Amino acid sequence: MTENRVWVGFDLGGTKMNAMLFDSKFDVLGRRRKKSRGSEGADAGVGRIINSITKLLEDAGHKKEMLGGIGIGCPGPLNLEEGVILELPNLGWKNVPLKKTLEKEFGCPVFVCNDVDAGLYGEYRFGAAVGSRTALGVFPGTGIGGAMIYDGRIFRGRTGSCLEIGHVPVDSDGPLCGCGRRGCLEAIASRLALSAEIAKAAYRGQAPNILRAAGTDLTNIRSGTIKDAIEAGDKIVDDILREGARQIGLVLAGTVNLLAPDMIVLGGGLVEALPKLFVDEVSKTLANRVMPSYLKTYDIKVAKLGDDAGSMGAAAWARQCVEEA
Amino acid sequence: MTENRVWVGFDLGGTKMNAMLFDSKFDVLGRRRKKSRGSEGADAGVGRIINSITKLLEDAGHKKEMLGGIGIGCPGPLNLEEGVILELPNLGWKNVPLKKTLEKEFGCPVFVCNDVDAGLYGEYRFGAAVGSRTALGVFPGTGIGGAMIYDGRIFRGRTGSCLEIGHVPVDSDGPLCGCGRRGCLEAIASRLALSAEIAKAAYRGQAPNILRAAGTDLTNIRSGTIKDAIEAGDKIVDDILREGARQIGLVLAGTVNLLAPDMIVLGGGLVEALPKLFVDEVSKTLANRVMPSYLKTYDIKVAKLGDDAGSMGAAAWARQCVEEA
Repeated sequence: MTENRVWVGFDLGGTKMNAMLFDSKFDVLGRRRKKSRGSEGADAGVGRIINSITKLLEDAGHKKEMLGGIGIGCPGPLNLEEGVILELPNLGWKNVPLKKTLEKEFGCPVFVCNDVDAGLYGEYRFGAAVGSRTALGVFPGTGIGGAMIYDGRIFRGRTGSCLEIGHVPVDSDGPLCGCGRRGCLEAIASRLALSAEIAKAAYRGQAPNILRAAGTDLTNIRSGTIKDAIEAGDKIVDDILREGARQIGLVLAGTVNLLAPDMIVLGGGLVEALPKLFVDEVSKTLANRVMPSYLKTYDIKVAKLGDDAGSMGAAAWARQCVEEA
Repeated sequence: MTENRVWVGFDLGGTKMNAMLFDSKFDVLGRRRKKSRGSEGADAGVGRIINSITKLLEDAGHKKEMLGGIGIGCPGPLNLEEGVILELPNLGWKNVPLKKTLEKEFGCPVFVCNDVDAGLYGEYRFGAAVGSRTALGVFPGTGIGGAMIYDGRIFRGRTGSCLEIGHVPVDSDGPLCGCGRRGCLEAIASRLALSAEIAKAAYRGQAPNILRAAGTDLTNIRSGTIKDAIEAGDKIVDDILREGARQIGLVLAGTVNLLAPDMIVLGGGLVEALPKLFVDEVSKTLANRVMPSYLKTYDIKVAKLGDDAGSMGAAAWARQCVEEA
């Protein structure tokens, strides 16, 4: 029954939407990117999602009756069973019944999942983690996202997503975190946290290439800026990044001892800009800190699918859910 | 086919063996306890296991043809698929093919699992964690054992057990751990680690009730001794235990953020001696440290089945594996 169907994978981000259409072999039939325009409110936003998917089908010459299912990866706390976005602070949405609305519109099953879970599931099905039994994903960005695929399925809590590796406490007296606690891993080692360290160094005159390219404004200190400054010789920027990667490695060491992953995927823009630095520092830290009996039980790889991971994973997850139902 | 069978659950400990026989409703048909006598070697030890099970069946008037399966919980690194004990340092065993030997002897399927996993699975099926979706178990003793039941099954690594919560790194410069690293949780908060703190306090004259009951010998500072000393007014012993429980709570906070358990089971002799102290301190630490959105998503309970958890869990796990095969 799922053999000749087409599948939509949708990645709903704080700033961008990425919709992709796949055939039953998961070859790409089409794609649409849009800005999320959260300020227009949830109703307008859901309208834009519906419009994107409708256009995607039209452009590819498929009627909605051909849809096997839609998978949609979203940030923010979700109710996975009911497919409700409980809150999306970046877009200002609250209690959006996405599954119900889209199922009514398109007449096919819709599965809402966490965006980081969707991205790692994409890497597990089509990218860096193919063939692994337990894949752990870590994605440093504004925060630090985490996810796990266990035995072919997304690991999750009773009603919501989990693997909040960015909120593992590292230092009780550490810097304030977006979640309201202090000293979470992401308050110390996210791109945002590292950018703040880099901006201070720039202000003190220790990172001249950063100062020239971005000044001391965090918003301008992007992954590419950081990479360029390291290559241009800002030693302190290299030091700051390595310390961040080491902190991620320390938390990962405990996580490896808990979960015994055979595959660790590092991803996100910062890791993609500096893949060797992250793989080297995380590998070294793990080698020094995991239980000796877990040494050499895991691979560490950089994510392969870039911005498409979420859409690909969401579509494949929808199909898996339909086939298991 | 499994309806009228009987099931053996075996708990192989460093010092004691506990064998139990169950009917198909998991009512207890018999029980045998023995010393493990590891110093006699693996062959003699396996002989004692076979002898225990044979006697258990005889006493209950069952032939081995009635056996549906045998589950056996063992410490030490295991190959779960092949049912091999890779190493049992306390008993001096190496590469013992337990599954193969017992299957040949008894003509029924045999499942080797980790002893902590078996204990938590017992609590999940018959004790404190019945009905939970994701149950996390923490058992402070000589080390600190951990386990997780996820969606009805023991969570495990590719070839072995995992959930080594005792080896989550807490303090890079901390005390030496049995695993060879420094500053693991169990090097700081196991009964052994806390007993060493207590012995020092006794030596300094700060724990007179410990000094009277046990001197300064770690081996004599047992769970009961600690409980009695706290009740008799050794304030510092109470402080040491609360700090240990707080450290466990800190690591658990990160673990909750990763795994979103709905049930946390605390067990082992020390927790059973001081249940309120452990539940209070762990609850308080979690309340202060988990991500705000995870507050009130979990219960914390003390294990209910005592020394029978491992045998009950191993037998029930064997039956689940047989029924799923």
